[in-house]
Amino acid sequence: MGVMAAQKGKHLLLEKPTALDVNMFDEMFEACECNGVQFMDASMWYHHPRTAKMKEVMSNSELFGRVKSIHSSSSYCGTSQFLENDIRVKPDLDSLGALGDAGWYCIGAILWTMNQKLPTTVTALPTTQRNSSGVILSCSASLYWDEEQTIATFYCSFISHETMDLAVSGSNGSLHFEDFIIPYEENSAAFSFTSGAKFVDLHIGWNVKPKEVEVPTQLPQEAMMIQEFSRLVKGIRDVGVQPDTTWAQTSRTTQQVLDAVKISIDNGYKVVEM
Amino acid sequence: MGVMAAQKGKHLLLEKPTALDVNMFDEMFEACECNGVQFMDASMWYHHPRTAKMKEVMSNSELFGRVKSIHSSSSYCGTSQFLENDIRVKPDLDSLGALGDAGWYCIGAILWTMNQKLPTTVTALPTTQRNSSGVILSCSASLYWDEEQTIATFYCSFISHETMDLAVSGSNGSLHFEDFIIPYEENSAAFSFTSGAKFVDLHIGWNVKPKEVEVPTQLPQEAMMIQEFSRLVKGIRDVGVQPDTTWAQTSRTTQQVLDAVKISIDNGYKVVEM
Repeated sequence: MGVMAAQKGKHLLLEKPTALDVNMFDEMFEACECNGVQFMDASMWYHHPRTAKMKEVMSNSELFGRVKSIHSSSSYCGTSQFLENDIRVKPDLDSLGALGDAGWYCIGAILWTMNQKLPTTVTALPTTQRNSSGVILSCSASLYWDEEQTIATFYCSFISHETMDLAVSGSNGSLHFEDFIIPYEENSAAFSFTSGAKFVDLHIGWNVKPKEVEVPTQLPQEAMMIQEFSRLVKGIRDVGVQPDTTWAQTSRTTQQVLDAVKISIDNGYKVVEM
Repeated sequence: MGVMAAQKGKHLLLEKPTALDVNMFDEMFEACECNGVQFMDASMWYHHPRTAKMKEVMSNSELFGRVKSIHSSSSYCGTSQFLENDIRVKPDLDSLGALGDAGWYCIGAILWTMNQKLPTTVTALPTTQRNSSGVILSCSASLYWDEEQTIATFYCSFISHETMDLAVSGSNGSLHFEDFIIPYEENSAAFSFTSGAKFVDLHIGWNVKPKEVEVPTQLPQEAMMIQEFSRLVKGIRDVGVQPDTTWAQTSRTTQQVLDAVKISIDNGYKVVEM
């Protein structure tokens, strides 16, 4: 469907998962490149100003240091109707289930933290739940970066309470927030940040408490996303610049890791080398 | 040392890890039983009233539901002096390193959440860092409960910024806090709790925001621990009751999982059946 749209010269802003696997993604992206159209997946949280602010904080080597561990969780509780009939749990439609939907965000958040660098290995954890058609309702995985010695874990689920967690621990600081996909409120979003924390003598408390960093936004993140997409399309249409492939690369890396998690699950939770 | 003290009729309040493995633990605990002395490990956070309050919340099946996923992190940044010379990183002293020290708390918190039920499997994640003597400075693992289909992951480290995270997601609610081992302040501690959350129509926010549950305490958690230990010892001494084995069981379960993580690491991150 993405291929056909691209062939007709349509710019693509696609719901995630953008493809069933990376081969299908590449086919679609090739069609985009051939037809000079823009590609972007609709992960709106990348476009919230909070996201840029966090990257700024995490890029400060003194305040944050090197990323050591990451944990993300994305879940919501589907009704029994949803769990058997929604497009997201149909083997012939969105057959990646919770991994393709909720897991897409976790993988994206982890890769965003690691500046889109692919992990060395991906290993699913032994905890996949499926519906009667065999579609994933819940799963978990770990990602490991050899050179950085960084570990990431995530949990995604259609059968758990609403979570949208991202916790990143660096050598000098750490960052937590629990509404990364959809902020609690539209006008402003926050994250909690701690740097240089130690417990004080006699263990009676901490020397610093987490700081709540509030980032207001004039437009909701969905509007910011459309604005960015329009800006890129306008550049192509009006000024003749090439489509920006950054967003496609982000989607592709996410899709690659998602495929690896699926392969690991299908092979009895084996380690998948990337 | 624990054995000798018990044989002399001394009640034991021990720093963690209480033993190098579960066999050594059993030897020590047998000595306690033979000599009618009380055993407790010095994990002080169990004794904070916040801990009891959280258990109350999590036991409410309507508000919280069944536990689906747990993540815990315990880390602090040792100086280079610490990382080579502290008792916690000496192969002939506390040879379990970050796993025995910081990891003890994570494993304890996870088992506390699961009411001390042993997991079905324990699998270390491929990310162990060691000092020049081979002692663990950082590691990570996953625990899985087959019957409950619950997954837990943890990260423990001597080479990362201060963290003391516990995040528990249930079917109907979730709970987060980032100071579980030592509260930010001595007089009061809090946790964040959300129940029945959904993102509202058009994804412009959430229907409920996390509630900060504040739990004041008249005594610091260390004093509460000593108070509980004294109460038990007094019962033995003055009223002739048997030593309470609950705390020993808690330590033993923690030690068993800790051993399994160590075995998994030593065997190339193999799955360890419990």
